[in-house]
Amino acid sequence: MDLHILDHRLRVTSIGKSGLARYTHPLIKLIFLRNRSRCKFFSLTETPENYTVVLDEDGFKELQPSEHLQVECSTWLPLNVVSNGNASSSSQAVGVTKIAKSVIAPLAEQHVSVFMLSTYQTDFILVREKDLSVVIHTLQEEFNIYREVGGEYVPVNSQDMQNGLQRNGKDAPKATVHPVLIPENHFCVMSLDPDTLPTIATTLIDVLFYSSSPAGSGSDLNQDLECVKFFSFSLIDGYVSLVMDTDAQRQFPADLLFTSSSGELWRMVRIGGQPLGFDECGIVAQISQPLADSDISAYYISTFSFDHALVPEEDILSVKDMLQRPRKEPAR
Amino acid sequence: MDLHILDHRLRVTSIGKSGLARYTHPLIKLIFLRNRSRCKFFSLTETPENYTVVLDEDGFKELQPSEHLQVECSTWLPLNVVSNGNASSSSQAVGVTKIAKSVIAPLAEQHVSVFMLSTYQTDFILVREKDLSVVIHTLQEEFNIYREVGGEYVPVNSQDMQNGLQRNGKDAPKATVHPVLIPENHFCVMSLDPDTLPTIATTLIDVLFYSSSPAGSGSDLNQDLECVKFFSFSLIDGYVSLVMDTDAQRQFPADLLFTSSSGELWRMVRIGGQPLGFDECGIVAQISQPLADSDISAYYISTFSFDHALVPEEDILSVKDMLQRPRKEPAR
Repeated sequence: MDLHILDHRLRVTSIGKSGLARYTHPLIKLIFLRNRSRCKFFSLTETPENYTVVLDEDGFKELQPSEHLQVECSTWLPLNVVSNGNASSSSQAVGVTKIAKSVIAPLAEQHVSVFMLSTYQTDFILVREKDLSVVIHTLQEEFNIYREVGGEYVPVNSQDMQNGLQRNGKDAPKATVHPVLIPENHFCVMSLDPDTLPTIATTLIDVLFYSSSPAGSGSDLNQDLECVKFFSFSLIDGYVSLVMDTDAQRQFPADLLFTSSSGELWRMVRIGGQPLGFDECGIVAQISQPLADSDISAYYISTFSFDHALVPEEDILSVKDMLQRPRKEPAR
Repeated sequence: MDLHILDHRLRVTSIGKSGLARYTHPLIKLIFLRNRSRCKFFSLTETPENYTVVLDEDGFKELQPSEHLQVECSTWLPLNVVSNGNASSSSQAVGVTKIAKSVIAPLAEQHVSVFMLSTYQTDFILVREKDLSVVIHTLQEEFNIYREVGGEYVPVNSQDMQNGLQRNGKDAPKATVHPVLIPENHFCVMSLDPDTLPTIATTLIDVLFYSSSPAGSGSDLNQDLECVKFFSFSLIDGYVSLVMDTDAQRQFPADLLFTSSSGELWRMVRIGGQPLGFDECGIVAQISQPLADSDISAYYISTFSFDHALVPEEDILSVKDMLQRPRKEPAR
């Protein structure tokens, strides 16, 4: 399999709930007015705590500093696994499950923090730029590694990277077990033709920027305590991806958004009883490894405060059981 | 003819150019998300100086105070002249010209300040609530006056108003002659089916909120020094009206916006070499009376700083001549 290091330098930021009005102007520009910005990587995820915004440097320039904006200090690079047709994987699962053993577990063992961003199209594995040499060294046995440079994919000569190699320490990752929460919402992972984005603009604006204020239509059904507010929009290299629950989905015209042919619904596993931070390693691995062992598909979306895995609704009971079972120490 | 006092209590405000980003969130709500606001009277006009926002009290609540927001301290009421079929007027002209002699001149003589807001559908004459008794007293000979109360039009018993009548002084209005500027832009006065507003949302958002930042498409052609930035959007009782120049018009899909069947273009007369303020009376009268004498149609849009008349492009030379000619003192 191939691993691509994409040509985006990303910042991970968070906008406080009360600060969203202040950032509506730049965010609407980044989402809808592609000719006014050079931003090519944009992701916005609403959770009950805040809005996580991941975006490239051209996009980041649009966000004025304020007390409402938190910025993680690193530059992150997105990686992307590309099956080149003759992949030997016998797994039928999709999403992060496919890369649990080949990417996520080895990086966790090397103490590399990852920030995951699954979309309709693919799974982005964000790593800190400063960890890149460790990442390449760790993954080069399993993958042909290419770096995107000006739209071309250039093979990474791992010899070049050895000089800069800094191992991130040799101790085994501490197996912190984070509590998980399984809300009642059912989610869909969708896309749409980017040319039809203007058609859903007012609905998307309503859902993204106004859903916490009362609406006359009673559309905000998420007040059920058992449900959790979660809505993710991304526009990356021209591809749109949306993750929303079925209440939000009903607000959109049914004929424009599409999901995979099976139209499956997903349940969420929210990881972390308190904000996870960015320095702990192995959180994704702790969730994705048992899913991989059971060949259960999963999307995975990290946010500024918590991580979120989405698993097929028919698997939620076994996932719940799996995650609450006492865990074996990871094999060394 | 009938005069309606509409059931809206309005505020006249101005948002500074540099403060627009801060007000994007409430303004987009007021323009596009009708189920999230009870605002029924909303008008936004961009000029080179600022954004004039006229809106009812439900809308005004949405605008948080800040150093970017100026608010005229009065409550204003919109009046509306309704021809009841057998009007004796021989004029073929439309707009403010039709009401120049019956409404605008008499109010000017009574020192009543008016704030004009012409739209595609009608011409709103805004007067201060505190002037209402003078207005009714002044106009009751010419008009049957009705006040809108809960959607019904109730005849105003002018006897009731006499008690509260305060005349605004008896001197003739000072005939201050304001300089006029005639920019090169050609304007159109348009409307669209409010149900299609979502279809043009991204274009309208782009033009309203982002047109002063550079665009990749080179769509901001207004930098010609001879042209003046002017764009007006209103959504009043469910009716949309747009006034824009032909450069802005080209950005919208041609099949959704409509203008009157003749598709005429309009030229602007901008009144005032320095901000006019709200207390001087007779400014509209000075422009509209000579237009009425020549039976030239005109729209008229007041903003926070300046007044703007729109006249048919074929009449602009005679209007220019008319306004620059030494003026007779108004007949008493």
